[in-house]
This record gives sequence, structure tokens and C-alpha cells, in this order.
Amino acid sequence: MTTSFTSIAPQLEAQAIELPSWAFGNSGTRFKVFGTPGTPRTIQEKLADAAKVNELTALAPKVALHIPWDKVDDYQALRGVAADLGVELGTVNSNTFQNDDYKFGSLTHTDSAIRQQAIDHHFECIDVMDATGSQDLKIWLADGTNYPGQGDLRGRQDRLADSLEQIYARLGDDQRMVLEYKFFEPAFYHTDVPDWGTSYAQVTALGDKAMVCLDTGHHAPGTNIEFIVMQLLRLGKLGSFDFNSRFYADDDLIVGAADPFQLFRILYEVNRGRGFDADSPVAFMLDQCHNVEDKIPGQIRSVLNVQEMTARVLLVDTVALTAAQNAGDVLGANSILMDAFYTDVRPDLAAWRESRGLPADPMAAYAASGYQQEIAAARVGGQQASWGA
Amino acid sequence: MTTSFTSIAPQLEAQAIELPSWAFGNSGTRFKVFGTPGTPRTIQEKLADAAKVNELTALAPKVALHIPWDKVDDYQALRGVAADLGVELGTVNSNTFQNDDYKFGSLTHTDSAIRQQAIDHHFECIDVMDATGSQDLKIWLADGTNYPGQGDLRGRQDRLADSLEQIYARLGDDQRMVLEYKFFEPAFYHTDVPDWGTSYAQVTALGDKAMVCLDTGHHAPGTNIEFIVMQLLRLGKLGSFDFNSRFYADDDLIVGAADPFQLFRILYEVNRGRGFDADSPVAFMLDQCHNVEDKIPGQIRSVLNVQEMTARVLLVDTVALTAAQNAGDVLGANSILMDAFYTDVRPDLAAWRESRGLPADPMAAYAASGYQQEIAAARVGGQQASWGA
Amino acid sequence: MTTSFTSIAPQLEAQAIELPSWAFGNSGTRFKVFGTPGTPRTIQEKLADAAKVNELTALAPKVALHIPWDKVDDYQALRGVAADLGVELGTVNSNTFQNDDYKFGSLTHTDSAIRQQAIDHHFECIDVMDATGSQDLKIWLADGTNYPGQGDLRGRQDRLADSLEQIYARLGDDQRMVLEYKFFEPAFYHTDVPDWGTSYAQVTALGDKAMVCLDTGHHAPGTNIEFIVMQLLRLGKLGSFDFNSRFYADDDLIVGAADPFQLFRILYEVNRGRGFDADSPVAFMLDQCHNVEDKIPGQIRSVLNVQEMTARVLLVDTVALTAAQNAGDVLGANSILMDAFYTDVRPDLAAWRESRGLPADPMAAYAASGYQQEIAAARVGGQQASWGA
Amino acid sequence: MTTSFTSIAPQLEAQAIELPSWAFGNSGTRFKVFGTPGTPRTIQEKLADAAKVNELTALAPKVALHIPWDKVDDYQALRGVAADLGVELGTVNSNTFQNDDYKFGSLTHTDSAIRQQAIDHHFECIDVMDATGSQDLKIWLADGTNYPGQGDLRGRQDRLADSLEQIYARLGDDQRMVLEYKFFEPAFYHTDVPDWGTSYAQVTALGDKAMVCLDTGHHAPGTNIEFIVMQLLRLGKLGSFDFNSRFYADDDLIVGAADPFQLFRILYEVNRGRGFDADSPVAFMLDQCHNVEDKIPGQIRSVLNVQEMTARVLLVDTVALTAAQNAGDVLGANSILMDAFYTDVRPDLAAWRESRGLPADPMAAYAASGYQQEIAAARVGGQQASWGA
Repeated sequence: MTTSFTSIAPQLEAQAIELPSWAFGNSGTRFKVFGTPGTPRTIQEKLADAAKVNELTALAPKVALHIPWDKVDDYQALRGVAADLGVELGTVNSNTFQNDDYKFGSLTHTDSAIRQQAIDHHFECIDVMDATGSQDLKIWLADGTNYPGQGDLRGRQDRLADSLEQIYARLGDDQRMVLEYKFFEPAFYHTDVPDWGTSYAQVTALGDKAMVCLDTGHHAPGTNIEFIVMQLLRLGKLGSFDFNSRFYADDDLIVGAADPFQLFRILYEVNRGRGFDADSPVAFMLDQCHNVEDKIPGQIRSVLNVQEMTARVLLVDTVALTAAQNAGDVLGANSILMDAFYTDVRPDLAAWRESRGLPADPMAAYAASGYQQEIAAARVGGQQASWGA
Repeated sequence: MTTSFTSIAPQLEAQAIELPSWAFGNSGTRFKVFGTPGTPRTIQEKLADAAKVNELTALAPKVALHIPWDKVDDYQALRGVAADLGVELGTVNSNTFQNDDYKFGSLTHTDSAIRQQAIDHHFECIDVMDATGSQDLKIWLADGTNYPGQGDLRGRQDRLADSLEQIYARLGDDQRMVLEYKFFEPAFYHTDVPDWGTSYAQVTALGDKAMVCLDTGHHAPGTNIEFIVMQLLRLGKLGSFDFNSRFYADDDLIVGAADPFQLFRILYEVNRGRGFDADSPVAFMLDQCHNVEDKIPGQIRSVLNVQEMTARVLLVDTVALTAAQNAGDVLGANSILMDAFYTDVRPDLAAWRESRGLPADPMAAYAASGYQQEIAAARVGGQQASWGA
Repeated sequence: MTTSFTSIAPQLEAQAIELPSWAFGNSGTRFKVFGTPGTPRTIQEKLADAAKVNELTALAPKVALHIPWDKVDDYQALRGVAADLGVELGTVNSNTFQNDDYKFGSLTHTDSAIRQQAIDHHFECIDVMDATGSQDLKIWLADGTNYPGQGDLRGRQDRLADSLEQIYARLGDDQRMVLEYKFFEPAFYHTDVPDWGTSYAQVTALGDKAMVCLDTGHHAPGTNIEFIVMQLLRLGKLGSFDFNSRFYADDDLIVGAADPFQLFRILYEVNRGRGFDADSPVAFMLDQCHNVEDKIPGQIRSVLNVQEMTARVLLVDTVALTAAQNAGDVLGANSILMDAFYTDVRPDLAAWRESRGLPADPMAAYAASGYQQEIAAARVGGQQASWGA
Repeated sequence: MTTSFTSIAPQLEAQAIELPSWAFGNSGTRFKVFGTPGTPRTIQEKLADAAKVNELTALAPKVALHIPWDKVDDYQALRGVAADLGVELGTVNSNTFQNDDYKFGSLTHTDSAIRQQAIDHHFECIDVMDATGSQDLKIWLADGTNYPGQGDLRGRQDRLADSLEQIYARLGDDQRMVLEYKFFEPAFYHTDVPDWGTSYAQVTALGDKAMVCLDTGHHAPGTNIEFIVMQLLRLGKLGSFDFNSRFYADDDLIVGAADPFQLFRILYEVNRGRGFDADSPVAFMLDQCHNVEDKIPGQIRSVLNVQEMTARVLLVDTVALTAAQNAGDVLGANSILMDAFYTDVRPDLAAWRESRGLPADPMAAYAASGYQQEIAAARVGGQQASWGA
């Protein structure tokens, strides 16, 4: 017997998932980036699209920025644009992988001038945060090497520690740094922050305002990600999530698309570790690439997937589960979990959405809204946003 | 006791490894493509660079073309340019992944007009082959889907078979088709030719002129590639190799860079299956991306790696090995193989190169040649070649 | 809108999943095999347990035998025992991995006497099939090597082909051979039948009565198994399934336990390729190890998982799916699939079971039956069945 | 130009690699354990075999014990036996995976009585250490679950922390605890110490005498192990190595057999991080299973592999390497590393061994010694040692 939907609704109401501005631009693989009609040319247009997602779902009140892709002259003004659209500016993401100077590293570089340049870029990001009121500086580092011997792994790690220390020192009292780890790509032999252990050791050395960012697509094949979620919550160091899903590498597919049951297990550990609590330090965010599917409905689908799976997780009869676990009842315990996973929460969610003045089916509502046709007609000319700009 | 170097020299003399024209252009990841001074702007400049590799190593007499990247008006003229440089035009590679029409497939597309366009592109490639005298049409298909349900796996496979049949029918008597398989990328949920079994089943259905192409980077983690080499040679269907190496995905690193012992085992099976024989149907080729290292010396290093490893393989005492295998002497058999692997063949190879009028150390000879400085100075302006052009 | 349950019931009624006799014995890892009260000591007791599964589910009318584990003097008598219990004897599985002679191979061995012994064992299995009326001889070969050089991959493959030919020749008109492939284990460097391509090439060389057996746990990490299902059905060579699930290696967990959505996709392709049709050549079977969970409810849970997932697959609106696929509507097509996956089929299935005189909840019915307590009390003394006996 | 052999000989002379007593017993897979003539029946016979390895190589002065497999009444006496054979007793390994009580966990168990039993077992191991003079208590924990929901990941981790704390408190001033991590097996869904991050977080919470044990076979596919070596040395927490090699899972093959270049890179980072220094806290040890190859020569081959690869690593021209790294010379830096890797150190090592009164070729010396024939003749009757006893 799972818990009743009514009892979990308040928790669902508090759910918020930050959207990445870049998900609304074009993206692709090294082989090809396909364009699509209606793709935003500016951060203002990206915000408009993100606001549409929030309007239809009430799940996505914040939009993460990527610097320099979303660079503007006046961040106060941008904050106003967002506010007018009903959203806030969220996490600021730095970029140290597209400047020619960073071919052999940024925060880890042997050349102190280039390393300083990368540190300065993060200072600039903190300035942006000051202007936007953003809480988090997210650092995903593309640094690494392609061939054994190309770099000195140890020296690079030491320089990384020093660079992070300098950036950390610049953070305001209410600001945080989240350090993302990634198994591989774009570097192929070694990556300077390849696993949660490295991110954890680095942020622990910095202090309380530094936390780990877990991207669900950044692990070796077969890794038990929910275990890491549990461990980081237990250690008090899970700062944020980048949601997406993967079959092979960092596929950046829609969260829940590749292995819905894995998403269920991950969110179960979030809840078990009180990551959904009001005072939880965990920020939830999407990080995805809509290479072949439509971007706005891709984002809507994603936040709905997280919402639906959260509902299933909250339905788990944890009292019965604990009893079965303590009794060594393997099949019983497993079936309590599966019972919640297999429960169809969609009708209850649809009704509940309507009761809150939201469309029962946000995907259908988007399709019916005409917004896609509008932007396709309006956004003609200019340079469609992508990772390159 | 390994075999003597003298006895294996004649086999080494016959070795030829085709170079890919695109290895001389810029390449990168979805995050960034770094440019480098001296990068060719045209196929003619690519041929010049390839010819340099061959001049210093006598290992690379052919250059593979990629259509449309290497498209020219007059292929007869291009053939002449190559001949003047001391090389030949080799395999013709088709491209069905960069046209906007191919977003959802090419040879597998549900839309018969788009599918015909992709078939026609291969007809055009065969026309190029007629003009260049190339033997092989290589088909690597980016077709696949990113989400379960996006496509009908079965229907796509059937349309692929039909498309290949039409292309096959156009081949001349001395022309072949080689069908490459790849585990994943650029598609993330399914790929239409993901494994050797699929390629084998498809080419077997076509006839004797269709063969499998094995790219050493296109397998699932942990796959025993030398077993596949053995099996395809045994079945008479190994048409060609694309050499490179990988740590994670399709990293396209220098062959032998990631796991030299794996390269040794692969080449051992090539030799065991008579793939080095004069009448062998196996074409050897590089397929690499020099993202952060210099391109021309990257290619020199690659063909030298194959040559050095071939020498080690030829040194294996196969009589003693067979005896140990039949005796169930696990450690003895393994040590016979390892003995050859650990033999330092470099001094003998250097002396032998000199005896043939080649530089003892082609890497050093290239560095000393001033060629890199020359092209860096000369190739200013224009558009550096990359996958995009 | 998914299809209605009523319309799919007839197809569900025809479903049959063979149980492996060894699932009722103890199993474990190289570290430990845990015993449990009530574990069968004989094949007759295994049949009784299997019959219990069938009694409560009407899904498991056949029991596969493993020779020599299930060896008896009188197979006709055993057939009678089964019939009295309401089940039939099914697939006969050979065993060439536990005899000391097979340390370095069986059907691939260099020693012709040992190879003949392994061939003779299969002749003996065919004799058993003649007596039991079994249709299928299943060959899973543990042959392989642990170290490079230990064996001659090519020679072993050729001897395998010859051995299989001799066994194939002995098959009766209504008998089949199914050749199972496995990525690795118990051999660690190479396995003689490691992938579907090898099994396909070997059985194709034999003739129509030889087919491929696909065990869902026997693939490299990340392999798209449903693609292989599609391909083998398309090629007319999918003979049988061994269902189970895996997180890492050949974990042999309960089917659907690790990745339910993968099971959904696999069964979707079975249906797409007409593998559920009455005249389909595909035999469905479990192959699992209940190391820590109870065995009989483990088997009940497994067949129910297959049944529930089959129901979800049959609910897919294939007409709408095809339309969305042809329109390039990625999100639409995916959501039609997911709609069926997320449908809770359990209430309809429970009612339908009751309408057929079966318990609505077979797991609960088993727990209430007292059978477990009965066998725990009765089966005292003797040697509990396991892989060793 | 690599460094000269003469200059590295002193470092090689100090090398010591501990042997595991269990490597001399029989081992296998869940499918079969093959016996071999001459296999020890007792820990005394295992010590004799280990002493033979050390006699011929001077590389293996210590032997690790496994409790209860190597349990004796009088450890002082055993210490004397070892001393008479010219070896010492080394690391003590606990075992919490073969008692029926540990089916659902040991140091993590929900039942406090069973958990106390597991803690007490470690107290007993510390008593053994007191008697044998062993420095290290090695804990490899088989604890984990097979099905989602079976256990509470968080609660288990907390109980693990508490159990380790109690054990840690019992350690003497000169004793250490090393906590091994393992990706998977024998548990299939989750393992309580699955990665270096978990081991690091747990031992850091304990204190200076607790360190991480890195087993080279215990990582996800594709993991860059040398990076972890670098990181743990940098963090001062690399306590010990378990050497072996793997193609797929925890294959426990001879170290250096599967990927010699990986061993080279790992040992390079050991040297880079001063792990070979006299005052280094790193203990080197083998942990292998000789399933199909002879055990004593298997161990000789293993220590020689480590010695040969260490020699190659010490030959690296680190000054030139650093210069190339700082210059961004990717190919140059890589080739400095490869130059050492491809150097054939075997002739120098053979001469050097002779100069120290050791056989030039320890493998040949063992084969010629007649020892294998002696033990095969002498060790008849009794129970051959294996994991079970």
C-alpha cells in the first residue's frame, strides 16, 4: 500500500527545478549541430522560452546563466527582464573551454598568466552573481589531457587547488561554489575533476561554501549513482544536481528518458537524505542538449519527468520498507519500492495541477498555445544561440 | 627466443597504411575545435602533408578522400596532383550526417525522397571512384535515434538493406563497398549499424564485393577486438581497418596510444589470419583526430606505431607458441607472446630504415625538415579545413 | 491513448515462460553459496516447486533440465512425474564446464579425445531429449582463455564449428539446437562464443534447426539489447531467450529488477518482430540465480514481471507511434511508448487472473499457501541441490 | 634518452611485494574450482611456496594471512616457521563473507548481534597481528545488496562508520587499518564501499592510522586508476595496493597481464608521488587468483612483472618530460614516456640479478628446480587449500 497522493502534494508544491539557458539554444555533436526555427538569438529570448516552461508547469522559477554565452552589458536590467517574465536568474556557469588559450588547461595550466586569466574569469562571474543576486557559481572544468605524459597529473591537481582557493576567497557570504565532476570528455586520457571523490576532496579543503555538483550523466558505465547521492548528502556536501540522462557517454538526454527506474532510485535517496526539505542545500537543475527534439517541450517534458518521479518516490511506504529491510525480506522490501514505481501518478497529478490553475497536461497545453509558431515566425534573422555564442 | 629481424623485414617492406585526408584538418569535440598554424585549406594541401608522411616513412602511399569535404571539379587533375606528390588517391568516404535533411536518417529514412538523396550521394561517390581509380567505397552511417520510440528499428534496418542493395548494384567489377559499424555517437539511443554482427549480416546479403570495416574505436567497453578480427578473417569478410585508439568512447586518438598491448594482439590476429599476405583483402587505414597534438607528426607517429607493433607481432615464435598452447602451458604460451611484445624493435627498425634510404627516426627528421615552419608561414588566410568544410 | 486491456488479454493468455530447474537449487558467487531451508535435493523436488509456480500463475508450463545436474535413470518416469504435477519437461541444457578435463576447453579443445568426450555429452543430451520429448538442446559454452596467447582463437573457432556440426547432425527432425553467447565469465581474456555475431555465424553455417539463444545478461556494458532482438528476429534466427537482469556482469538477477524499461523495450521488439505469435520460433525461459532471495517467490516474481511488462508492451498504440515516427515527432513518438510503460496494468491483470480461476496476487497466494513451511519441514537431510550437484 | 639502469638499481633493490597466502591455494569461479597437484593443505605449506618465490626473486619477503583460512593455534610458532623459511608474516586480512550470519551484511548489519560478531572478528584479527607482528589490518567488505530496496544505503553507511570506529580504537600504536573498496561483487546492486571516495571519507573520519587500499581490479570500466593513485598519494591516504589485472570484472589475473601500459602508468604515479621512497606509507601486495595457470610460477611472474615495470618507470627522463609538458609539446611528452615503456629492461635486470646471487631468469630457475615435482609427490591426501578452507 503506497502513501496517499493528498499527503504528498505539499511537498510537490515546493519543488523547483532550475532551467539552463543553453538548453533553448541549438546543440549537437562534433558531427553536426542542427538548427531549428524559433531558436532564441539572445539571452532575453532564452528567458522568454524558460518563462513559458514555468508558466505551464510552475516547476521552473529560475534560469541558469552561462558566461560568456549569456553576457550582457547590464545584468540589473536582465534581472528586470526575468522578473517581468516571472522568473529569476539562477546559477552562474563559468566557461574555460572555448578560449584558444585554454587548449592545455585553465585553472590547472602550467602558465601562470593563463591560469590567472581563468581565475579572473571566475571573478567576473562572481561580479555577475553580485548583480543578478545568484547564489551559486558552478564550475565545470574541461581541463584534462588526451595522451599519457601530456601533463603532470599531480601538479595540475595542486594548481587546481590553488586556483579554487583564490576564487573561493572572493565569494560573498551568501554565495556558494559548486564543483562539478565528469568522467571524461572533452579530454580523453585524463580529466582533472573526474569523480565525486576528487570534487569532494577539493571542496572540503576550501570550506563550507564549497559543495559538490552531481551531473547524472558524468559517471563510468554501471556506476550506482544513488549511492553517491546518499554519500554526499550524508557528508553534507551535495550542493547541486545537473539532471539529464545517458545511454553511453554524456548524452545529455531528457532526464528520465534512458532509465526511469534509475531516476526513481536517485530521487528516493534525495528524499531519504532530506534533500527535498525546505532547508536543504541541494539545488536542482537540468543540464541537457535537445539535439533532435524540440527544445521548449523538451524542457517541459524534463521537469514533468522529475515531478512525476518525485511523486512516485514520495509514495513509498517507508515504514513497511524499513520493516522488510530489517527482517531480511529481500523480495518484500524490493516490492514495496516497485509498488510505488509502478503506480500511475499521472491522473492525480493532472487533477492537482488543474486545482492549482495550471494545465492538466502541460505538453498538450504548450502544443495548443501557438507559442512555437509565434517564435518561429518572429525570430527570423540574426544568429541562433548555440554553444558557440 | 623470438624470430630474427632479418627474416621479417620483407613483410615489413610490403606494409602500407592509408592516411585519411581529414586528419590533416582541424578537429575537436562538441565543446571546441582548436585551430593550428599551417593547417591545410584545400585537399591539395592535405595531399602535400600526407605525401610528407609517406616521404619520411614509406608507409603511407595512399590518401583517403571524404566527400563532400574533399570535393573538387576535376578528380583526374587531383589524381595527377597526388601522383606528382608520390601518393595515390585511396578509399572514398561518403558523408550522410551533415546535411540538414539527414536529421532523422539517410539510408534508413522513412521519407523516400531523402533516402534517394542519400543513395544518390553514394552514386556520386562511385563516380568519384571511377575518376580517381579508388577501390573502396567506405560507408560509415551516422543514422540512429536518440530516444526509444523515435524510430522503428526494424523498418530502418530493412530500408538500410534496400539502400545498400541499390548502391552495391552500381559498383564496378573492381570496386568494393566496406560497411563500418559503430557502437554509438552521434546517435545516443540506437545506431543502425552498431556492431560487427549487423555489418556482417548486411554485407553477406549483398555479395562478395561487400565487406566489413572494423574501426578499432567503435566497440563497447571491454570488447575483445582481436576476437572480432579473427572471426571476420575466418569468415572472409574483413575488408578494412580504421586504426585509432580510445580510452572511453570514439576518442580517435593515435593508434597504439591508449593500449599498445591491445594493438599488438589485434595485429597478431591479423597475421594469424593471413591479413598481411599479398593477396589479403584487408585494407589498412588510419582514422584519427589530432585535436591537441600536431597533425603531421601525429600521422607519422601513428604509422610508426603500426609498423613497430607489426614487427613485434612478426617476431612471435609461433612454433613454440603452438606447442605451449597444445600442452596447456598457460604461462609458457603467454610468455612467448609477451617476449615478442617486450622486445625493443626500434634499433633494428632504425637501421633498416636507413638501409632503405629513409630517415632512421622519421619524427626527428620531420622536426628537422622545417616543413612545419614553411606551411605555417605559407598557409595564411583562407578557411582552415575541418569537418565542417 | 493506449489500447484497451480487453483487446490484449487473448495474447497474454498464450504466454508461456519456461523455468530452469536450477533456479530452485542454491546458487551464489565464488565467495559463498548460502543454503536455505526447503531447498530441493532432487529433480523431482525441483519439479514440484516449479509446478507450484505454474499452479499460481499459469505462466510456466515447462521446466528446463540441466545435465548432469538433473540426471536420472529413467527419463520416461520423470516425464510422468512432471505430467502428474501439471508441467512438462522442456529444454535440455548441456554442461561442459565442471569436468576436470574441460579446464582448457570442451568443444574447442585441442585434444581430440577431450573434444570427443564433449561431443558425446551432447549426444547423451539428445538421448535425454528423445526420452523427455524436449524440443531444444541449449548449448552454453564456458570455453575460453584467461591469458593472451593461452589458446589459438582461430583454431578454437574452427574446432567449435566442427563439433557443432557433429552434434547438429544427430538432431531429430523436430529437435533444435540453440547456441548461447556470453560476453565473459568464466573465462576472462576471451570466450569462444562471446557475441551474437559469432553465434549467428556458427548457427547459420549449420542449418535451419540451429538458432541463437539470447541471454539478457550476456552483453557488454551499454549494449542495446533490443536492437539485437530486432536483428535476430529479422534474420529469422532468434531461437530462445534466457531472461534475467544485470547491473554489472552476469548478475542473473530477477528479470526486470535492474532496468524495467529495458525489459519493456526488449519485449516491444519481440512483439514488433512477431515473436509472440503462435508460430513464432522463440522459446522464452528464465535463467536466474536466487542467491539471497527466496527461490520459489523469486520465480513467481519473475514470470509476473514478464507478464506485466508484456501487457504494457501490448498496450502501445502502434498506429499513433508509426505516425509520429514518420512525422519526425521525436517527443511525440517517445511519449506514446512511455504512456504504455507508465500505465499501471496491475489492477486489470489481477481481475483477469481471478476471472481465470487464478489468484489475483500470486505472490500473496504463495505466502499464504504454507508451501514454504511445508518444504522447509519436509526436506531435511540429504544434499541440497546447487550447481555442484 | 632514458636514464641509465645503473642509476636506478638501488631503488629496485629496495622493492618488496607482499604475497597473499591464498594465491597458493585453489581458486576459481562460481562455475568450477579446478584442483592441481602440489597445492598446499596448510598455511605452513603456503609459506613454503611463498618462500620459494622470494628465494628466486628477492622480491617477496612477506606473506599476508587470511583469517580464518590461515587460522592456527599458535601464531608465535607460525612466525617462527616463516622466519625459518626466510619470510615474514605480513598483512592480516579479515573475512566477513563466508559465515551464514553475514548473508545480509556484517559491519553494516541491522542486527546488532551480528554486527558485533563482525566487529569481534576484527578484534580477533588484531590479536593475530599482535602475535605475528603484522602492521596492517586489511578490511575488504563483501557487504552490499542485490536488489533496490533490499537495504537502507544510508543506514548501512552510518553503521559501517560506527563499526570501523570501534575496530580502529583497538589498533595498537604501530598498527594500521587499510580499507579496500570494490566496484561490485559479490553484491550486485550496491556495495557498501564501492569507490575510493567512500573509502577515503570513511578512513579520514577515523584518523591517521586508517588508510585506503587500492585494488587495481576494483574499478568501473574505463576508470583512470593512475589518477586515483596520484590523488590518494597527494591526500596522504594511500595505504596499500592489491595488484592484479582485469579485462572485465574483478578477474584477479596476473598483474600486468591484461594491460601492461596501464601498470606502467600506475607505477609512474607511484614514483611521482614518492610512493617508492623508504618512508612511504604504501604497502605493495598481490591479490590474485591462479585459476588455470600454475600458482608458484604465477606468483613469480607477477612480482617480476612489477619489477620490470618499475624499472621502466624509473628510466623515464623526468627532466625532459617536465620541459615538454610545460612547452605544450603533446607528442614530445608522450614519446618520452613511451620511450621508457618500450625499453627492454630484461637483459639489464637479468645481469643485475646474477650480480646479486639470484637466478638471471627466475621462471626458468623455478622450472629447473624440481620443486613443483617435489610438492606434487609429497602433498598427497588431505584437503587442498582453497577459499572454502
